[in-house]
Amino acid sequence: MERITTALTVLTNTGADRAALPLLWWLGPIAAIVALFFAILFYKQMMRRSEGNEQMKFIAQAVREGAMAYLSRQYRVVALVFVVLFVIFLVLSFLKLQNPIVPFAFLTGGLFSALCGYFGMKTATNASARAAHAASKNLNSGLQVALRAGAVMGLVVVGFALLDITLWFLLLYAGFPILFPQHFISLAANPLPQITAIMLSFGMGASTQALFARVGGGIYTKAADVGADLVGKVEANIPEDDPRNPATIADNVGDNVGDVAGMGADLYESYAGSILATSALGVAAVNLAGNNLLPGKSALQIGLLYITAPIVLSALGIVLSILAIYMVRTKDEASQSELINSLSRGLNLSSIGIAVLSLPLLYVLGLPNWFAIWICVLAGLGVGLVIGKSTEYYTSHAFQPTRNIAEQADTSSATALIEGLAVGMESGAIPVAVVVIGIMISYYVAGGVDNLLMGLFGVGIASVGMLSTLGFTLATDAYGPIADNAGGNAEMSGLDRQVRQRTDELDAVGNTTAAIGKGFAIGSAALTSMALLAAYLEEIRLVLIELRGIDSLLVRGELIPVMQMTMQNFMDFYHVSLLNPSVLAGLFIGAATTFFFSAMTMRAVGRAATGMVEEVRRQFREIKGILDGSARPDYARCVEISTAAAQREMLAPSLVAIIVPVVVGVIFGIPGVLGLLAGALVSGFSLAVTMANAGGAWDNAKKYIEVGEFGGKGSAAHKAAVIGDTVGDPFKDTAGPSLNILIKLMTMVSVVFAGLVVAFSQGQGLIYMLLH
Amino acid sequence: MERITTALTVLTNTGADRAALPLLWWLGPIAAIVALFFAILFYKQMMRRSEGNEQMKFIAQAVREGAMAYLSRQYRVVALVFVVLFVIFLVLSFLKLQNPIVPFAFLTGGLFSALCGYFGMKTATNASARAAHAASKNLNSGLQVALRAGAVMGLVVVGFALLDITLWFLLLYAGFPILFPQHFISLAANPLPQITAIMLSFGMGASTQALFARVGGGIYTKAADVGADLVGKVEANIPEDDPRNPATIADNVGDNVGDVAGMGADLYESYAGSILATSALGVAAVNLAGNNLLPGKSALQIGLLYITAPIVLSALGIVLSILAIYMVRTKDEASQSELINSLSRGLNLSSIGIAVLSLPLLYVLGLPNWFAIWICVLAGLGVGLVIGKSTEYYTSHAFQPTRNIAEQADTSSATALIEGLAVGMESGAIPVAVVVIGIMISYYVAGGVDNLLMGLFGVGIASVGMLSTLGFTLATDAYGPIADNAGGNAEMSGLDRQVRQRTDELDAVGNTTAAIGKGFAIGSAALTSMALLAAYLEEIRLVLIELRGIDSLLVRGELIPVMQMTMQNFMDFYHVSLLNPSVLAGLFIGAATTFFFSAMTMRAVGRAATGMVEEVRRQFREIKGILDGSARPDYARCVEISTAAAQREMLAPSLVAIIVPVVVGVIFGIPGVLGLLAGALVSGFSLAVTMANAGGAWDNAKKYIEVGEFGGKGSAAHKAAVIGDTVGDPFKDTAGPSLNILIKLMTMVSVVFAGLVVAFSQGQGLIYMLLH
Repeated sequence: MERITTALTVLTNTGADRAALPLLWWLGPIAAIVALFFAILFYKQMMRRSEGNEQMKFIAQAVREGAMAYLSRQYRVVALVFVVLFVIFLVLSFLKLQNPIVPFAFLTGGLFSALCGYFGMKTATNASARAAHAASKNLNSGLQVALRAGAVMGLVVVGFALLDITLWFLLLYAGFPILFPQHFISLAANPLPQITAIMLSFGMGASTQALFARVGGGIYTKAADVGADLVGKVEANIPEDDPRNPATIADNVGDNVGDVAGMGADLYESYAGSILATSALGVAAVNLAGNNLLPGKSALQIGLLYITAPIVLSALGIVLSILAIYMVRTKDEASQSELINSLSRGLNLSSIGIAVLSLPLLYVLGLPNWFAIWICVLAGLGVGLVIGKSTEYYTSHAFQPTRNIAEQADTSSATALIEGLAVGMESGAIPVAVVVIGIMISYYVAGGVDNLLMGLFGVGIASVGMLSTLGFTLATDAYGPIADNAGGNAEMSGLDRQVRQRTDELDAVGNTTAAIGKGFAIGSAALTSMALLAAYLEEIRLVLIELRGIDSLLVRGELIPVMQMTMQNFMDFYHVSLLNPSVLAGLFIGAATTFFFSAMTMRAVGRAATGMVEEVRRQFREIKGILDGSARPDYARCVEISTAAAQREMLAPSLVAIIVPVVVGVIFGIPGVLGLLAGALVSGFSLAVTMANAGGAWDNAKKYIEVGEFGGKGSAAHKAAVIGDTVGDPFKDTAGPSLNILIKLMTMVSVVFAGLVVAFSQGQGLIYMLLH
Repeated sequence: MERITTALTVLTNTGADRAALPLLWWLGPIAAIVALFFAILFYKQMMRRSEGNEQMKFIAQAVREGAMAYLSRQYRVVALVFVVLFVIFLVLSFLKLQNPIVPFAFLTGGLFSALCGYFGMKTATNASARAAHAASKNLNSGLQVALRAGAVMGLVVVGFALLDITLWFLLLYAGFPILFPQHFISLAANPLPQITAIMLSFGMGASTQALFARVGGGIYTKAADVGADLVGKVEANIPEDDPRNPATIADNVGDNVGDVAGMGADLYESYAGSILATSALGVAAVNLAGNNLLPGKSALQIGLLYITAPIVLSALGIVLSILAIYMVRTKDEASQSELINSLSRGLNLSSIGIAVLSLPLLYVLGLPNWFAIWICVLAGLGVGLVIGKSTEYYTSHAFQPTRNIAEQADTSSATALIEGLAVGMESGAIPVAVVVIGIMISYYVAGGVDNLLMGLFGVGIASVGMLSTLGFTLATDAYGPIADNAGGNAEMSGLDRQVRQRTDELDAVGNTTAAIGKGFAIGSAALTSMALLAAYLEEIRLVLIELRGIDSLLVRGELIPVMQMTMQNFMDFYHVSLLNPSVLAGLFIGAATTFFFSAMTMRAVGRAATGMVEEVRRQFREIKGILDGSARPDYARCVEISTAAAQREMLAPSLVAIIVPVVVGVIFGIPGVLGLLAGALVSGFSLAVTMANAGGAWDNAKKYIEVGEFGGKGSAAHKAAVIGDTVGDPFKDTAGPSLNILIKLMTMVSVVFAGLVVAFSQGQGLIYMLLH
């Protein structure tokens, strides 16, 4: 007991000169609570609405039950994984290979992420029938219900993330020193590096949860979708969401578990990860620069300013998001273009708001390089917007690339597939270009020439700025599947065709905004990962001091205190150069891991979908009267198949993400890990964009044909496009988005297992040990 | 004139202590001439055989004319590109940004590569009817004709490559100093670094030619193939190579221009590139180690040993390849398994021969670390064999992955496509693992811990060892399309069904050996590229001294003579660390370039195939009586369409490969280039394996169904598999193999344009210039 107490106090010691938190820091927890308050408000408003007639309620109830049954089974599997990892971390702690607070921080990251998924999905499944019912009144009412329900998800994510981060910080900064008053001077007067390093492990909890949610949800939804489409649309020639299709309920459940719960966990992780990585870098940058940055203030005081900066930006983003949600309201009988304008207004308001208001906030906060940091925020917003626009260009059928696919579909499915793959592969060029430009601008503007860590802090701030309005962008993201489900409900309940038309319009509006949301998600992943590379080395520094008790290292013949080692010293000590075969091995393995991981998730979808196809065919064959509507298909069996398949299939790919960095770290050491992370980042980014956009483009090429081009529904071109869409489903909804998380989870795993890796020749790895 | 003379002599000065070439070095040119002699012998033997009846001759002639017409048009376009590049190089030379011999070395690389393509294709197009005619006697005769014809290609490639390399070396080492006797002491007493650096630009000629051949040939063959398959097989339900199909001659021409001429140029480039890169590294390693390696000998004398090592290995490989070709002969009525055994015997003989005989040769040569270098040869062979076996596992329908695709085809084409993509993505894991293991073994065994360059020389030797038996492996590779064409000829000439069965068997045997050949090609590309990264920095060293007149640089506060800078000094001077945003930008752009390039080549195939599909449909519609055989289709029109499409489409992707490294070099400097090359290498490797194996697996899944599984030919599963095969065509025969060359061409371009890049702040790049 005393050991634990001792350990905890060691880790939380704040030294003699305790500094008060900047006043603006408190905006963080306040905004978090405000976000949660509005989430509850929107939820209650939504629940007060009517769910419509009995048939609508029945279908909504079936989807709800399926979704919740899935979620509880998923959480049970994930809980098991968390318990195993928790025990591993505890054992590592007792072996002095791990910080003893890490296991707990890890747990809360996972827990809050799971809560977001739960609340988001509860809201979404309650909203679909209500949105359908509201849409039977008019378009705007449907929009309001769906968007407000999506906003619950958005606000819960940002609220919980910011709450968890600020509470942990309070606990580590002020709580533990009060609870355990003995002080151990370990990192001079500045405990912030320790605190931010511990908090990164909270990110690993969120990432692990997110990967399971994305992979499991992605498998579920696409197995159902592919199964429903292939047999229903192609073979039996019945429309989407037709109640005669046995897989239709599973399909609608899938939208919720994949696109709502999965996406929520995904973006929770991105949001929290970018704030945590940026904080760690800010502290590290200040630590090395000393008090040159702001004469007269201690490193602790300046560090607190840099920790506060991302929190202030996020708090501002929350307020703007709530305002933006309220902005989205139009006349009762709005046209579609008015709707799009309305949503765009929200997006513009929040983006411009961040751009304009962050300047005075950063100034008032008192950051020495406040203007430069503001430029980084702008760079981040710019990157997100351009990626979003590029995504829209490549995936919307208003533009040439998607129309070309439709044209190729008129030749054959094979040429449509080739063209779609080409569109996807081409579409990475603009995002990569703007990410590179964004990195260069924020790195150099923030001061990377003199202080590499400050440059990377700038890159981190760019990703925080980009994600700051997540409350709103996620609302517009989550709104899509809700509108989609509303349409399904309307179709299955046999509502007026006009209702279905309206929900389709809502869905279509959502696609445009979702493209921009995706741009933000993937752009921030790239920027955050770059920041995490440096955060990883900061973690190594602490591990060397805290766990290994190493005060100084011999770097190229010079003994340098570990506390004062620059990033360059680390690179020198670990021989991290592009000609070191361990770095190249890491790069190779990193790139290959992204492909291998995608293979696993794609195959999982393929296998699960085959099971679904067989079941749907069996029902059509064995249950007489399904097609003429005289008999009801066995929906539950299809839900069960998707659920079981997702559970079975999600484990292996997720374990790959956890095991690879540890094994590479042990064998190739820290140069290998850095290579691995960089390789996975650059290769995974291109691959993820390729998959997401190819999938999106196939989907919309199909829709383009459905609106009457190239022969319209039922034509040969349409059949070819449906095949493209089906291949694209696991691309855009399973493998592609999972890659984002894979990249970051591998970094987080590296950070958390740094202690183990450093145990092998100070992190030079087994191969080095054997050769020296 | 005098300036040129002066320049030439500067570049070729050998200093005072001229050393004689090691006796074993002369094995190189001798083996090259022997190879060319046997190539002529095999060609004459083949030409003495009968081409069969009039119809066979007519078809062979049509294919021959189409192929030669294509080749001459391709060469005209490429010649134009070469002239432009030649002029650019000349201008750069006069601006002192380029070595004045480079333009000429560049030209010969391209010229000899073009000759290989020409002779290879001339042989192949003359052999097909003869192989068909021989196969009408018995299986073994068909095998002999096809394999010997393939051997012409194999021997021409290794012969010309080794001849060009050894002649240039003689000219630079001994010829120029005699022609231009004034001596300019520029690199002390050792001219080898200059000579090997100049010779690398010969590699760029070969790479440029190879890329055009691969991309152009790949587009040609797949446009014809896809067009023929989609309309002929799927829509009109006529079998492969049916004379009623208007695209069938174009399809057969395509096999020759893509799989023979394209592959020949590809492997010529790999073979020459690995020898050149390894020589450059050997010289550099010796140069830095000084005469510690072999006391009593000068750096020049030791350097000559290291230059001789890859040449001796290649010479040995040529002799073994010729023996292996003679080994492949069985009884007249051999069964298929006997045939496979016969081919495998040849492969085993040459591989074991290299493994056993290289040990005494390296010992006799007198390399100080001869045993270690021998281990590297073994490592290289091992990597090639394992990748080959892994390729076979993933793409042969004797194994589970391909059968799974066939099974998924029974569900739908979409699931077959998903499964195939998953198989491809998964199949990179083993190749990456063995490449990493091969790199680690050869690097450390060769002595990379003490001398990084010697470690990389070991990696280079591994790739030379792997490719040493190319004479034979390429024969088995080129033999495939010849057998395929023989089958086409038999089918179109209405020969006995038994003949077609025999050629199909020959084709099938070729698939197995071709898989191993592909393993060698892609494995060596990875190893050579790694070696080229260091060779690039060696080039920078020479550029700094020769062109910029910089004798020493300030590296971290210490003034170091450029001649004595270690690789680490270069890394330090240019800030090449994984946290340098320029390096990361390069990595991002490198990965993205491989995707973008693939998109361009895939789309080119899609576009060209669409044109072909429309033409074939038009002919079926407009030329009455094609399908009942009463009218002859317009073959020439289809040949023309493929030719024109390939010409039009090959330029843009090839220019990307040339422009990107130059632009990245100018903007981001040398750290950016190194990042670019590493990013393209690791991402391109995984992507290339993915594409090649997914394509191969789809192809064989279709064949598996055709032999009677899942309903056999004409079943729904078969139709689904044909779609998969069609999507796989550009994967495996256009984009995938082109990536290999892209990776190396980008490195070669960087090497050749090093002078231009160094002109910007000594190679720190524009961004650095602007910021400092």
